[in-house]
Amino acid sequence: MARLEFPAMEPAVNFCCTCAAPVSLRVPAGDTLPRYVCDACGAIHYRNPRLVVGALPVWQDRVLLCRRAIEPRLGCWTLPAGFMENQESVAAAAERETREEARARIALDEMYTMISVPHINQVHVIYRARLLDLDFGPGEESLEVALFEEAAIPWDEIAFRTVAMTLRHFFADRARGSFGLHTEALAPLP
Amino acid sequence: MARLEFPAMEPAVNFCCTCAAPVSLRVPAGDTLPRYVCDACGAIHYRNPRLVVGALPVWQDRVLLCRRAIEPRLGCWTLPAGFMENQESVAAAAERETREEARARIALDEMYTMISVPHINQVHVIYRARLLDLDFGPGEESLEVALFEEAAIPWDEIAFRTVAMTLRHFFADRARGSFGLHTEALAPLP
Repeated sequence: MARLEFPAMEPAVNFCCTCAAPVSLRVPAGDTLPRYVCDACGAIHYRNPRLVVGALPVWQDRVLLCRRAIEPRLGCWTLPAGFMENQESVAAAAERETREEARARIALDEMYTMISVPHINQVHVIYRARLLDLDFGPGEESLEVALFEEAAIPWDEIAFRTVAMTLRHFFADRARGSFGLHTEALAPLP
Repeated sequence: MARLEFPAMEPAVNFCCTCAAPVSLRVPAGDTLPRYVCDACGAIHYRNPRLVVGALPVWQDRVLLCRRAIEPRLGCWTLPAGFMENQESVAAAAERETREEARARIALDEMYTMISVPHINQVHVIYRARLLDLDFGPGEESLEVALFEEAAIPWDEIAFRTVAMTLRHFFADRARGSFGLHTEALAPLP
């Protein structure tokens, strides 16, 4: 999707999306956190973290990366990933994003990293995956798609910290011969 | 939080929450899915799945369950879980929900189940956890909190399918002596 990714810009909440009355930001009865509340129609407009889901597609000893055609981080390399959509599963989102951004078909292996990014209200989930063939290429949001050996990874041009963390885990785990699940949280840059 | 959980009611999107103009549901340029778009201010109001996060707290051979004091499924038993909040990590959400609903303190083990529920736009994540002490009791959303041996689990009164699936995995894995991660997706009931 052509939406700005990581971080997402959220439209300001000034009015009720149901009835158009002004909202107030206050703690509803029985709740503990401030919410956008409409005093006209009673709707409560919750805001919650979004899932960014993708894959780490592998072919022999190489991994597939996409060079971004869109901001943020235009020109940098990333794993195929994007916002999970309503009405889909996490696994389906990983396959769809890989198809859209790298025009690639994969077989998913295990979920591999789940990294919370609390300061931008996101959770990034990456599956390990096997590339099914070499018929891939840039989707609309990519300038270029390529396979990289570990020694050739453009570490200084990786688009997002969660992608770099996932790649580092992958090469370390591969060297050890064992891939566990990595769950962690990311603090803001100083 | 006192919000209706599983499934969540989403307020209808008729107006732009930023400028109060009417929105239209259409596919924005460069996108592939219909979104709520404001033609007055240009805002795009994305809707994405929400994370419901919780824990399976264990004390010796027993697991902790909460009897729900709120709809849906008032009176049924569940694991402590709820909507992940902005500005928190997945692990912090599991600990917070356990503290809120069971007034219990836990040490988290591994993430254990991640179950997509596409027809209600949710992803349910449960961590295995160790109860740190027996000083627990019902929070505002619980009628009762108790520890259950496997043979005493009230299977017919479990509030949600994802909770029942998680408990069944747990007892099966415990019998085998090995706890893996379970990722799956749930289809609507017929």
